[in-house]
Amino acid sequence: MATTELGRLLRLDGDVHVDFIDSPALRGNPLGDPSERALAVYTPPGYDPGGSKRYAALYVLHGYTGDTAALIGARPWETNVVQWVDRLIAERKMPPVVLAVVDGFTRLGGSQYMNSIHNGGYATYVVRDAVGHVDARYRTNAIEGARGVLGKSSGGFGSLHLTMTQPGVFGAMASHSGDAYYRESMVQSFPVAQRELEKAGGEIEAFVTAFEGKFKRKPAEYTTLEMIGYASCYSPRAAKRFAIDLPWDQATGEIRDDVFARWLQWDPVEMCLGKKTELERLRLRYVDCGRRDEYALDIGARVLVKRMRSLGLEVRHEEFDDDHRNVGYRYAVSLPALAEALET
Amino acid sequence: MATTELGRLLRLDGDVHVDFIDSPALRGNPLGDPSERALAVYTPPGYDPGGSKRYAALYVLHGYTGDTAALIGARPWETNVVQWVDRLIAERKMPPVVLAVVDGFTRLGGSQYMNSIHNGGYATYVVRDAVGHVDARYRTNAIEGARGVLGKSSGGFGSLHLTMTQPGVFGAMASHSGDAYYRESMVQSFPVAQRELEKAGGEIEAFVTAFEGKFKRKPAEYTTLEMIGYASCYSPRAAKRFAIDLPWDQATGEIRDDVFARWLQWDPVEMCLGKKTELERLRLRYVDCGRRDEYALDIGARVLVKRMRSLGLEVRHEEFDDDHRNVGYRYAVSLPALAEALET
Amino acid sequence: MATTELGRLLRLDGDVHVDFIDSPALRGNPLGDPSERALAVYTPPGYDPGGSKRYAALYVLHGYTGDTAALIGARPWETNVVQWVDRLIAERKMPPVVLAVVDGFTRLGGSQYMNSIHNGGYATYVVRDAVGHVDARYRTNAIEGARGVLGKSSGGFGSLHLTMTQPGVFGAMASHSGDAYYRESMVQSFPVAQRELEKAGGEIEAFVTAFEGKFKRKPAEYTTLEMIGYASCYSPRAAKRFAIDLPWDQATGEIRDDVFARWLQWDPVEMCLGKKTELERLRLRYVDCGRRDEYALDIGARVLVKRMRSLGLEVRHEEFDDDHRNVGYRYAVSLPALAEALET
Amino acid sequence: MATTELGRLLRLDGDVHVDFIDSPALRGNPLGDPSERALAVYTPPGYDPGGSKRYAALYVLHGYTGDTAALIGARPWETNVVQWVDRLIAERKMPPVVLAVVDGFTRLGGSQYMNSIHNGGYATYVVRDAVGHVDARYRTNAIEGARGVLGKSSGGFGSLHLTMTQPGVFGAMASHSGDAYYRESMVQSFPVAQRELEKAGGEIEAFVTAFEGKFKRKPAEYTTLEMIGYASCYSPRAAKRFAIDLPWDQATGEIRDDVFARWLQWDPVEMCLGKKTELERLRLRYVDCGRRDEYALDIGARVLVKRMRSLGLEVRHEEFDDDHRNVGYRYAVSLPALAEALET
Repeated sequence: MATTELGRLLRLDGDVHVDFIDSPALRGNPLGDPSERALAVYTPPGYDPGGSKRYAALYVLHGYTGDTAALIGARPWETNVVQWVDRLIAERKMPPVVLAVVDGFTRLGGSQYMNSIHNGGYATYVVRDAVGHVDARYRTNAIEGARGVLGKSSGGFGSLHLTMTQPGVFGAMASHSGDAYYRESMVQSFPVAQRELEKAGGEIEAFVTAFEGKFKRKPAEYTTLEMIGYASCYSPRAAKRFAIDLPWDQATGEIRDDVFARWLQWDPVEMCLGKKTELERLRLRYVDCGRRDEYALDIGARVLVKRMRSLGLEVRHEEFDDDHRNVGYRYAVSLPALAEALET
Repeated sequence: MATTELGRLLRLDGDVHVDFIDSPALRGNPLGDPSERALAVYTPPGYDPGGSKRYAALYVLHGYTGDTAALIGARPWETNVVQWVDRLIAERKMPPVVLAVVDGFTRLGGSQYMNSIHNGGYATYVVRDAVGHVDARYRTNAIEGARGVLGKSSGGFGSLHLTMTQPGVFGAMASHSGDAYYRESMVQSFPVAQRELEKAGGEIEAFVTAFEGKFKRKPAEYTTLEMIGYASCYSPRAAKRFAIDLPWDQATGEIRDDVFARWLQWDPVEMCLGKKTELERLRLRYVDCGRRDEYALDIGARVLVKRMRSLGLEVRHEEFDDDHRNVGYRYAVSLPALAEALET
Repeated sequence: MATTELGRLLRLDGDVHVDFIDSPALRGNPLGDPSERALAVYTPPGYDPGGSKRYAALYVLHGYTGDTAALIGARPWETNVVQWVDRLIAERKMPPVVLAVVDGFTRLGGSQYMNSIHNGGYATYVVRDAVGHVDARYRTNAIEGARGVLGKSSGGFGSLHLTMTQPGVFGAMASHSGDAYYRESMVQSFPVAQRELEKAGGEIEAFVTAFEGKFKRKPAEYTTLEMIGYASCYSPRAAKRFAIDLPWDQATGEIRDDVFARWLQWDPVEMCLGKKTELERLRLRYVDCGRRDEYALDIGARVLVKRMRSLGLEVRHEEFDDDHRNVGYRYAVSLPALAEALET
Repeated sequence: MATTELGRLLRLDGDVHVDFIDSPALRGNPLGDPSERALAVYTPPGYDPGGSKRYAALYVLHGYTGDTAALIGARPWETNVVQWVDRLIAERKMPPVVLAVVDGFTRLGGSQYMNSIHNGGYATYVVRDAVGHVDARYRTNAIEGARGVLGKSSGGFGSLHLTMTQPGVFGAMASHSGDAYYRESMVQSFPVAQRELEKAGGEIEAFVTAFEGKFKRKPAEYTTLEMIGYASCYSPRAAKRFAIDLPWDQATGEIRDDVFARWLQWDPVEMCLGKKTELERLRLRYVDCGRRDEYALDIGARVLVKRMRSLGLEVRHEEFDDDHRNVGYRYAVSLPALAEALET
């Protein structure tokens, strides 16, 4: 039975701790976000800090406009990722593992777990600072082959991004409804953001400040923040707050192909083509998406999988009858698959 | 600064603890829900468990299909009630208080904080077991005049219900978008529930079990569970699980006035007419609602306030331009009003 | 092949004429609507104005906020009632008939085909002036047993209303998704209308004038006009424009039971109980509704049918998997059923 | 006062006739659509077929999934284009004109008023057959400088397309919410269509046949038909029914840039760059769009206008606070502007 307040709130058989780590990689970032981050670590039943058993470790990356606190929150009839891993272990559908929820939030909604001159070194923070903390404090098997990374939406993107750009850290990955194929998934949001920004006089800072000051925010306002945030990841102009290039002309809304090309460099369907070596190392490449995804990420997943397979890589690819929201039940597929693929 | 993990996750100046209390009033309830409940208790900056200062205590009741864990969850850009009280105290908009979040969840979505032969003694649990625990463990001023109760939606109903049926416990109340005037607020949901139940063969148990087993649930399914749950509060048939009378004929959907009359007995717009004495004791009667409330609870609030005023009672009544969802920012009005009304 | 421009636009095998009749029953109505009305009359292939063959006649009543022009309008892939009858005759699914579309529109959206001191004598207009015109100008079999009436929504209500209150005219009726059981179908709209009217300063005339002056109108504005319009039918106060009692208190939104009781007198589920004799005369009583009707008229149909059957009457009752909109394909069921029931 | 049934139904001061013209340009088209088309012609009050006065002529092109019958249909509180021109003339906001509504419907929803090897010669049909008929039968001033063309959505596209590709016919044009900038306006619909087609086994013919056979069709099904229809205009493969290239890979949904390039050739924002000479001839170039257009056609309009202006052309450009639906009230701006620009 759980001993921590949070573990009891979540009714866990295992337990969960929230550590606060101060990441050197995030210190002094231009956007001004804190370098101290909440890292929630799940330990399974029977876990003994002083014992000799070592566990595989799974790292969970949250989606855009999410953070660690939101991901580990509990709601009636819902099952969060910590509750899923606990239940799957209890039902013997997977071996016991350590699972860590990493916080990649920024003031603009998310870091995409990338190193950005504008936001800070989020990739380094994950693979060095967060992984280092877990391996130091918990009884993990501290090798690539015993580490997996997974996430949904931008967390799925992060899982792809980190395995492709930071090889040697994670031995398996799973992307649920991950960002991909920006020509379709992103472009539909540009007009929405263009109009909202225009209402704010075209000023990014004015928009963001107003956004933060509201009691409630409309879907179009969230979409706008997301586009600004993605631009802070994909097309920063300088290491200075709000020095961001948007991929559209603010006067007309026309796509700026010079900027959009910078986004596409990070699009998994493009990047994978040059990352065969990095992807080959993985014991599991898992990609799924709902067939009614509002951002057409099911199309993105199909294009990604086709291209990865064209490189000779095996990919586990699944589709399901759902949209982009509340698909946490897919962890019931990915968590056992990752655990099985990893060394124990 | 917060010392608990949860307090740090919520970035509190004060702190928050989650106690688990075993309520005698809930033991052995026919529905089979646990008698142990999470009670989240906020303590303000400077709170000293061993000191001599005593604080007023505010009790927060969550809404239907909510629970303590959900209410204290954190999400980016959102402010929950614990964060609100912490912020308002920091900004000196209200004096420091202790604030407790009480769990009134049941398997059917909520207890309405009532004593029900079907669900258990939730009113007694709140006013005796939860209040008793707080007064015993925390440095509260353990008198009626220093206790307030508030909540939103079914939590607003609970605040009205407990001050009317359990006088002498709370000295002030606030209801945000509280359930009232069932002729309009409830009746619109009956056809929805009638159709969903028909799909489940008309069996309440079959419906509930299927509901619990799903990964995702549709709005109509939530509505149906709510109607079943309200019936477990307002029109139970016996102290036996699912022995519940629904206020409509399951074959046609026609309203069953014999059953609906039992609901109306608990409708605040009806009950208030016989509770002048109980309501007079209160130092503050606060009622608000959004003018676009999907359940027409703004109409309910107007009718309630008109009737209370017709009894010679003063009521603070506000309306705001919003619907029923995510109106937590109204705590910024009610919390200081309650604190100011109470003895300190 | 059709010879009229309209008949050709609708690609009819038969033909359609639009007559304009000046109804004595509508002259000088307080609301100020025209007494001249468009009456669209379909004649089947082979119809000979100078021949000896006589046809059964079906009268179609449009829904609220509709009129004759709208009902006979054509849209790609859609089939209006004139096109349906033409097709069903061509496919030999029913015998040739004359079909007349009667206009019951008012400035407030519709007359419910009732005689109202406020709106004018719409019931008389239908059963005397429109039927009289058709029988005089077309080769109909001018007897009760060869006349049917049908409609959707308020047109379904009208079919019930006219057969119950003007017996001896129609020998068969069909109601698709007809207004009934106002306790559920109407009450949900009261808060919507109360709020909109409040924005207009509570003045019916100001609301209506503003409504008419807009380029586009929101759903809530349509709902408000409907409630005003129904009140002009069910609870007029005097034979003077806008002298209408609304069934709610304009200050609070509370239901005014004295006024609502006047509405309920006309509710088919109530009225039918006293109209056994009138309903017994009918050769066909047909009632259907979609099981997802937004106004819960499926519940209304069930209650109505149950009550009619409790009087010993046979009713053909069908449900289908759809909502309230665009259910014209149900004419493919009702038109042949009516034609078969009537004398030819 | 109107003399025709249709003119009376529309309550016109002038009149409207529906002629049926058999277009040589449409005969034997591979898609199998009729060559006989309804042409609705409005004549103003005082129009005398035997008189000597000549009128400017405005040609109205309907939108996708529309046709002549739908465009001239009447609905309570709505004003169609024929009613608008009649009202504006009555109010002396524009001089009397003849106005013709041209039918460009196809089995796939619309022709874009283009000559297509798959659909037939719709551009020729408009500029030669329809214009020829009007000039022969009505007292129009049969010169380029006295002819205007306008439309909404695909009708706006048609107005741009015909003035750019068929110069010498129309002396002024107006596009309301016209199709443009396909990279944003079209691409968002590709995933929708890809999924729907996949459900139909990937077969265009199977999808279209099923679409036609349904009583009701979902928005996604309309979107799919539109994409097929646009492909029949922009990227037909052969002069054979359903020999159409779709701009996406049917297996993955990936954009096929070879096909999409064919679409872009017809995109007004691309085509205009090579049509300076043709556009220069026009007395009025009018472009407007709602700032909340669901297809981002406001962005398209801005890009189009910017490019046309970069060629040295004057463009009247307006934006309004609305979406793509029911913006017929914009005719109140364009009709007088066109009439004023044209010779009389």
